[in-house]
Amino acid sequence: MPAGLTTDLYELTMSAGYVAAGKHQERATFELFLRRLPRNRHFVIAAGLAQAVDYLLNLRFSGPEIDYLRTLPQLQNAPPEYWDILRDFRFTGDVWAVPEGTILFAGEPILTLRAPMIEAQIPETFLLATISFQTMIASKAARVVEAACGRAVVEFGARRAHSPEAGVLAARAAYIGGCVGSSNVEAGFRYGIPVYGTAAHSWVQAFDDELESFRRLQQLLGPKTVYLVDTYDPLEGTRRAASLGEPLWGVRLDSGNLGELSREARRMLDAAGLKDAKIMVSGDLNEYKILEMMAAGLPIDALGVGTDLATSSDAPNLSAVYKIVEREVKGRKVFTAKISEDKQTLPGAKQIFRFKDRDVVGYVSECPTCDQEGMAPPVPLLRPTVIGGVLLGALPDAHHARQHARESLDKLPKVVRSLYDEDHPYRVEYSQELLDLYEDFLANLGEART
Amino acid sequence: MPAGLTTDLYELTMSAGYVAAGKHQERATFELFLRRLPRNRHFVIAAGLAQAVDYLLNLRFSGPEIDYLRTLPQLQNAPPEYWDILRDFRFTGDVWAVPEGTILFAGEPILTLRAPMIEAQIPETFLLATISFQTMIASKAARVVEAACGRAVVEFGARRAHSPEAGVLAARAAYIGGCVGSSNVEAGFRYGIPVYGTAAHSWVQAFDDELESFRRLQQLLGPKTVYLVDTYDPLEGTRRAASLGEPLWGVRLDSGNLGELSREARRMLDAAGLKDAKIMVSGDLNEYKILEMMAAGLPIDALGVGTDLATSSDAPNLSAVYKIVEREVKGRKVFTAKISEDKQTLPGAKQIFRFKDRDVVGYVSECPTCDQEGMAPPVPLLRPTVIGGVLLGALPDAHHARQHARESLDKLPKVVRSLYDEDHPYRVEYSQELLDLYEDFLANLGEART
Repeated sequence: MPAGLTTDLYELTMSAGYVAAGKHQERATFELFLRRLPRNRHFVIAAGLAQAVDYLLNLRFSGPEIDYLRTLPQLQNAPPEYWDILRDFRFTGDVWAVPEGTILFAGEPILTLRAPMIEAQIPETFLLATISFQTMIASKAARVVEAACGRAVVEFGARRAHSPEAGVLAARAAYIGGCVGSSNVEAGFRYGIPVYGTAAHSWVQAFDDELESFRRLQQLLGPKTVYLVDTYDPLEGTRRAASLGEPLWGVRLDSGNLGELSREARRMLDAAGLKDAKIMVSGDLNEYKILEMMAAGLPIDALGVGTDLATSSDAPNLSAVYKIVEREVKGRKVFTAKISEDKQTLPGAKQIFRFKDRDVVGYVSECPTCDQEGMAPPVPLLRPTVIGGVLLGALPDAHHARQHARESLDKLPKVVRSLYDEDHPYRVEYSQELLDLYEDFLANLGEART
Repeated sequence: MPAGLTTDLYELTMSAGYVAAGKHQERATFELFLRRLPRNRHFVIAAGLAQAVDYLLNLRFSGPEIDYLRTLPQLQNAPPEYWDILRDFRFTGDVWAVPEGTILFAGEPILTLRAPMIEAQIPETFLLATISFQTMIASKAARVVEAACGRAVVEFGARRAHSPEAGVLAARAAYIGGCVGSSNVEAGFRYGIPVYGTAAHSWVQAFDDELESFRRLQQLLGPKTVYLVDTYDPLEGTRRAASLGEPLWGVRLDSGNLGELSREARRMLDAAGLKDAKIMVSGDLNEYKILEMMAAGLPIDALGVGTDLATSSDAPNLSAVYKIVEREVKGRKVFTAKISEDKQTLPGAKQIFRFKDRDVVGYVSECPTCDQEGMAPPVPLLRPTVIGGVLLGALPDAHHARQHARESLDKLPKVVRSLYDEDHPYRVEYSQELLDLYEDFLANLGEART
């Protein structure tokens, strides 16, 4: 269950302060977006909205949690009504968000939340953690799948993920990003992700000889049998596997020179009349190694990718932030922005307008028209998801999100899907109205600060 | 609650196969260890044992979970008694482990598990995920704390951790590794970790002017007040904070050139007569940047470290593995090892014997004596923790683990604590008995495979 305390303490001290200042009911709008993209990334695939919404709709503070908070020195001066507010806490605000599987770029809101200040502040930490993690993994998966040139990629990273729960969410996100499934059983149970797995080296080692272990596996799995052949010697293992004939799915190579081994294993399987038997490879793979294998035309039919995928190891975090952009004070809209060095934000609630070949991030009330006759009007990407604390309709599941990601990727110019560094190949612009709003804000700020 | 399905599918297909082969009750010993250390690391600090043991003692399969497994194509040939075994599953085995906070090196078991084959196989994924993640973060924290030269380091990474739950465990592990506490409230509630936090930029932005927001914060927090001064202009913010006088703890700088800003902020606070006011810095910090700040003698009293710490971003995964090393077949001990290229393991259950200046990894029944007269006998690091499925005694909590880590770090030669690459500065040897065992194993394997 989502817990109220899974947040940073300052969200709760600020909330107590908003109550003390009589500000906790002032409505505020926050946006969750990426400051910039990591190295070698030109886009991300949004994921994690389902868990974010589930958290918001179930966010509560239990008696023991409140008792704990009351012991904290930082909350000793919290006004008495603060504790009643926490006890009765319910999220009553609005969430606009892009559907999971949507392709996004830096500076574009993934989620916009408008609620009374206290309800908008407390969720910051959880929303960032769940959305940025899944978005990072879905985006990494898309890279790995792109590199695999159509071969099936299975997510294998549960053991190296950042905690068992991270492994479950990584499996979900990797599926959205294009993997065919995962080894993670809980992800199958909870989210309906297809699950894969046959046997590890310990299976082979549990028997007195390798051939006996293979025979037993074949009895159990029949045509789904994947022999892991490298416990002792990968080619000797392949020879033994081939000697058992049909039924089998194929063999898995998990170590050594996968180029030489996959070619030799292919020859051995073919020579044994097992032309339909497949070859899966695994073992510290990532998109760069996979691209090299595909470029070499290796006879590889499927890939298991674990550590690098489930930890996005070449870019293990995203610069996701959650920033206040507007407040409503006595019915009046007040724009706000942070102007810290290198960490500026733009004021005002925004919408992303996707044209055929570029995005325009504009003020939410804008309705940009096509700049050329006959062009399709832009699609606004942020959609109402929760209004007044009520979910507007069941969210698309992981299967739909995966489909959406696939269709969106197919529309993306190939250069944007490149695995290597390029200079901003996709155009994202700010609307003139938004830039004017920022100028006004800075001018007013100057006045207010003098 | 720990869930039985938080594992890789192959653990369950193998388990069904062990039942089919009548092997599920054969006792086996697995060891969890790191194949190698990441770049720039010369040791790790073990963490995560408490969660690992909690999982083992509570590992069950619910009715709905078993119903789900029955639908999987890979388990269609599972023997009928397999489902009864899962339904009645209880961990009845033994766990030997090093206490949390212990310093370890590559190749040294963090945990050794001996149990009937099925009970030893299923936990692999969860044990690896929880122990390797926390060990990675505790080790990263030790680096950050080492760099901070005695200044307090607070873990701030909840929002960038790999899921909200990873953030909670990262806070725990970072505390064990030497942080003074965390911003993560759930970590405080669940594990008693000291929690810290005051206000974010949104607090400042929620008021019409910065000074008013500071005044309100001071009313709420008194001597614990930390003014975040860089929403608009860090030095102007510091001037405003200083104008409010006592009480305060100090100011926090979260962007810009922290060198220039901290020096200037110090001057401003001193000039205002606030010599006891402190300066905290934060914002994409890591051990390398911190070392540079400390070398420059900046007037910094405390540091908040988030993203880089909670994701161990320069080494976001450990090569932790869980490998079978022994089986008992009809009362006879059978040694086993994997000899895949670059992934070899050594057979036999091991113990780590720590001498004053080096470790010897030996066969568990060994009792190495001192090689010199008058030297202290070695300390065996792996201790019985769970025997016959029963926890031997309450495990040390995070506070004790932190203390243990601190004392162990203090004993470590300074060169081993260096943040940069060095060639194996600490000696870890394998005992002659263990190496002989491996030679025998290879010789016997050669015979078995002919």
